[in-house]
Amino acid sequence: MGNQTIYFKKQPRIIATSTIAGPKECEGVIGRYVETALADDMFGESTYEKAECKMLSHVIDGAIANAGFKREEIDCIVSGDLLNQIISASFAARDFSVPFLGVYGACSTMAESLAVGAAFINGGLMHRVVAATGSHFASAERQYRYPLELGCTRPPQAQWTVTGAGAALLSDKGDGIKITAATLGKVVDFGVTDVNNMGAAMAPAAADTILAHFRGTKEEFEAYDLIVTGDLGALGSRILKDLTWEKGLDISERHVDCGEIIYNVIEDEYQGGSGAGCSAVVLNSYLYSKMLSGALRRILFVATGALLSTVSSGQGESIPCIAHAVVLER
Amino acid sequence: MGNQTIYFKKQPRIIATSTIAGPKECEGVIGRYVETALADDMFGESTYEKAECKMLSHVIDGAIANAGFKREEIDCIVSGDLLNQIISASFAARDFSVPFLGVYGACSTMAESLAVGAAFINGGLMHRVVAATGSHFASAERQYRYPLELGCTRPPQAQWTVTGAGAALLSDKGDGIKITAATLGKVVDFGVTDVNNMGAAMAPAAADTILAHFRGTKEEFEAYDLIVTGDLGALGSRILKDLTWEKGLDISERHVDCGEIIYNVIEDEYQGGSGAGCSAVVLNSYLYSKMLSGALRRILFVATGALLSTVSSGQGESIPCIAHAVVLER
Repeated sequence: MGNQTIYFKKQPRIIATSTIAGPKECEGVIGRYVETALADDMFGESTYEKAECKMLSHVIDGAIANAGFKREEIDCIVSGDLLNQIISASFAARDFSVPFLGVYGACSTMAESLAVGAAFINGGLMHRVVAATGSHFASAERQYRYPLELGCTRPPQAQWTVTGAGAALLSDKGDGIKITAATLGKVVDFGVTDVNNMGAAMAPAAADTILAHFRGTKEEFEAYDLIVTGDLGALGSRILKDLTWEKGLDISERHVDCGEIIYNVIEDEYQGGSGAGCSAVVLNSYLYSKMLSGALRRILFVATGALLSTVSSGQGESIPCIAHAVVLER
Repeated sequence: MGNQTIYFKKQPRIIATSTIAGPKECEGVIGRYVETALADDMFGESTYEKAECKMLSHVIDGAIANAGFKREEIDCIVSGDLLNQIISASFAARDFSVPFLGVYGACSTMAESLAVGAAFINGGLMHRVVAATGSHFASAERQYRYPLELGCTRPPQAQWTVTGAGAALLSDKGDGIKITAATLGKVVDFGVTDVNNMGAAMAPAAADTILAHFRGTKEEFEAYDLIVTGDLGALGSRILKDLTWEKGLDISERHVDCGEIIYNVIEDEYQGGSGAGCSAVVLNSYLYSKMLSGALRRILFVATGALLSTVSSGQGESIPCIAHAVVLER
């Protein structure tokens, strides 16, 4: 139809959230809003992957409990993560006797799972859905780059994968933050091949979706208090602002990137945070709280994902990326 | 709600399909119904992974063309595959300027993508969606087991990953096969740890979803001409029949497994076919044709997936599995 935006007229809403994050993540400003602060990123488990899975399971349970529901009242869990075969999500879902839809959008997963969950609720097919994702610095490094034990030097354009997870409970009833629309992204590839420069790879996808959103909805830019991207980091955010500015949309005044704000001193983590857990933690803690309090009334949440694998990079492919946007309103 | 079944009252329909398969797959009975028979499973590419991606891209384009549409008339591609970070689906989607939702359900992907696509159409959010998946024997062996060059012996309980892909074009208008309901599966883990015995691991998930379907819909077993499972293979199918029989449902007369029928001589491939491409090829070629001709009028299509990774198996985990079911009617 040429219009990538879908409208949820029944306004499915996020009636509760839950978040967890590691020690480094909880040092920053966002950390004060995180529900469960981990003192140790192993979370009592024997491997990083099991810790990542346990975080995801923890926030899914947390969102259900915070909404005052029981597991058996949930119609579906929509979740995914960065690990091969999304084992964190699949193994977390094993703990719940609830239908499960696995999704994969790399770091765009929070927006993708919100959009899919909202679609099922909007159509009257389900009443309550949990949308959740997370990531772990150590499991991501091991899988995508090098095991930590190698002690590799990180290049200046690198980002730091967030250790954390976030979940949102979507419902057709109750008070909360409404999901009124979503703009589903196309796969965009600008030919970036540097696997340490995710921000540069993902920025064109974010720009594409944001521009498609404003083109399709014919909304004014001022209709939003904030345009929040997922994990472009400092460099990626600059590229995004340039790309949208070139197309006549100056988002700089109202743009914030979760990767830029999650750590206390961004320079310590080079370009800032990344990973599916980055936008999941910031959205479901800080942003959700600011929306509930009325400090933010309408935001465009644009999570971005880099759809590469070690095999695709090894075979000389560039990095295709995607960004999905959801409109959140008080 | 305790009921895992959702009903698509607007009856989104499959108005066209497209399939492709490798030389071995096209030797069997199903092969006669496959649209594009490959003479060489490299499909003109330099790597197995690129061949897998090209197959997927080929059938997505095929389904769009067979329905008489152009790419720009498609609202969304819902797709996933078995490779890490679903690179086949993501890279295939890069060829299309169409919104993309990546899903991961291992070999259950065909049913999952049909259910997600049908939900978006049923809710009036989209008009036309392509649901697609595929797999490649050589890329799956390399990723999950051993590179072919090692020449490892296969154990008797093993299955053979299908080289092939299938796509279905779902629409809110037009003639075709209606998708009237879906039963979304829960993650089920019976503790199987043998990564060569997917049939045994997945059979309990298939039984769980089939039983949930009949419990939730209160339908008679006779309402279906066929109950089709995705890729349990010969051994897994026997286990499924036993598990459902124990619960008072004898499906043996009307059950067929795509993995059991795709190869000419099943014994040559041990327990038969597997992989996301297995049920995708059989559904979108043979079964779709039989439904269009009226030979089959109502089927329950139950695709099953094993949600393991090499990391989870290496860390001593058992194999969680899932099965999603969709009701297809003439």
